[in-house]
Amino acid sequence: MTVRKPTMADVARHAGVSLKTVSRVVNQEPHVSASVQQRVHAAISALGFRRNEAASRLARGATMLTIGLIMENISNEFYSRLAAAVEAAAGEHEALVVFGSYEERPERERMLVESMYGRGVDSLIIVPSAADHGWLAEHPGLTTVFVDRVPAGLDRADVVALDDVRGGLVATEHLLARGHRRIALISDDDGLSSVHDRADGYRAALRAAGAAVDESLVVRGVFDPWRAGHEVARLLSRPDPPTAFFATNNRAAIGILQALRERPERPAYVGFDDFALADVFNPGVTVVRYDVRRLARSAVDLLLSSSPEPRRVRVPVELVARGSGELPPP
Amino acid sequence: MTVRKPTMADVARHAGVSLKTVSRVVNQEPHVSASVQQRVHAAISALGFRRNEAASRLARGATMLTIGLIMENISNEFYSRLAAAVEAAAGEHEALVVFGSYEERPERERMLVESMYGRGVDSLIIVPSAADHGWLAEHPGLTTVFVDRVPAGLDRADVVALDDVRGGLVATEHLLARGHRRIALISDDDGLSSVHDRADGYRAALRAAGAAVDESLVVRGVFDPWRAGHEVARLLSRPDPPTAFFATNNRAAIGILQALRERPERPAYVGFDDFALADVFNPGVTVVRYDVRRLARSAVDLLLSSSPEPRRVRVPVELVARGSGELPPP
Repeated sequence: MTVRKPTMADVARHAGVSLKTVSRVVNQEPHVSASVQQRVHAAISALGFRRNEAASRLARGATMLTIGLIMENISNEFYSRLAAAVEAAAGEHEALVVFGSYEERPERERMLVESMYGRGVDSLIIVPSAADHGWLAEHPGLTTVFVDRVPAGLDRADVVALDDVRGGLVATEHLLARGHRRIALISDDDGLSSVHDRADGYRAALRAAGAAVDESLVVRGVFDPWRAGHEVARLLSRPDPPTAFFATNNRAAIGILQALRERPERPAYVGFDDFALADVFNPGVTVVRYDVRRLARSAVDLLLSSSPEPRRVRVPVELVARGSGELPPP
Repeated sequence: MTVRKPTMADVARHAGVSLKTVSRVVNQEPHVSASVQQRVHAAISALGFRRNEAASRLARGATMLTIGLIMENISNEFYSRLAAAVEAAAGEHEALVVFGSYEERPERERMLVESMYGRGVDSLIIVPSAADHGWLAEHPGLTTVFVDRVPAGLDRADVVALDDVRGGLVATEHLLARGHRRIALISDDDGLSSVHDRADGYRAALRAAGAAVDESLVVRGVFDPWRAGHEVARLLSRPDPPTAFFATNNRAAIGILQALRERPERPAYVGFDDFALADVFNPGVTVVRYDVRRLARSAVDLLLSSSPEPRRVRVPVELVARGSGELPPP
């Protein structure tokens, strides 16, 4: 529980004036008597009301703040949990959330930004595609915070990301500590900063342990469980198969899970991103997890405050051992 | 790929008039000369432009259509899949989707409706709570379609629901056909029409098979997997335990799955609502499923068309056998 911040409505009640009047005073509009101005300022001081971007937007017109949330696909568990968390964080500022899924199509991502902007939604939280985002500089009226990934082609972006390098590091160290040396990496688009950083952590852990990085065990471009399962089966069928896997997202981990249902081998594996049923399988799925609410809240906080300098927030990650990551090599 | 439908802008280009003029003609507003009216009508015929509610809204103002989607909680898989499907169906009409989760709090559901309405979002798709919705009649400017459940207290609502009675019937018949007679029902709020109807189907199937409906095997008020698991453990510990379960939603089915991990018994069970990993467990989870895109598309279609009479759409359901529902009694 956090203490609720005073809102403009609280100020209005305290000063005994309408919300509209508070808005006029805050925005220094004309036609407010000096005595009313004084009452409103006194209420603002008494309550510790901090005029921020959200309040200023609320004050600017009849339309209250609406935050646009642009993601790959809301039906994936990572995104639906993020959406719920963004909604909760936005709700504390009385803001609504409009969402859009671009489904791996960068041109649709851009269309969504422009469609939202065209409807007056000028505060956006974007989980960006791997495409260049330089075109966003053409929208100086937009306030944008990027989540999970650093956008390509934008120098001065505000970004809230996970500690991805560390996630890759701890996942791989965990497998190394059980005696694994041949650890395969199943990952998606290496052009995404998150995927790239997780792979960096993986390589750093292997190097630190004196284990060779075998590039033939590094698989990229896996976007769905089916493809991940296919790659797992292919690698396990080699004469020198890996004894463990690190999956850089939940879809890849689920693909490993599905593939192993049909295979005799019992390799260890660790996934990145927790998912609802990860602890119901036997063995449970060991994952790198994080607080998605913290990711969402940080994004909303950056969106509603301003800074002359671009900001980077790193949300910590932790390893949760459930069984699949603790299996020994054969 | 579908052929793009002609828009009002196409009509305007074809007729050589402004969008505003097309809008005036389509909405039968005054001050348009007979010859211009004729040109616009000719363009409409030539292009096969169909005036619908969406077009009429688009014509009414600068703001394009935004659909409000109000649900219990977007992070639940049923709702996140519904949200993705509503977004896709809305996108065909160039509409954006703003969403809100009320999390079992009817007062928050009402607040979300009013908050959206206050921002000009007057087209809503609501998965209603069990509370009375008579207050919605106070918003004559709202166009609302209810999904999944018939709202209490509203006579003339447009509703898109599943064939819930049939779902309860086929699930229970499936278990009866494997020789089960003591079949427990794990359900949530019986005040929801969907839950009520699924239970009706369950009872009808038992009666038709000449099996008694044992009310001590009917559990209501289960809102999360943990509670479902608790009830399953309780029922299985009885001297006369059930040999099978029917879960009226995905949370209850997942609770059964979790509870059985810790139990020696192997009761059969069937869930309502498919979920991503249902086929990865051993045995796979037998479910009653349906096409969520059809649910969403029907809702958007009703929202964008009008009728003097309230409409009811029933989306069909089917049973998918995966193993858990085919286990025999001990």
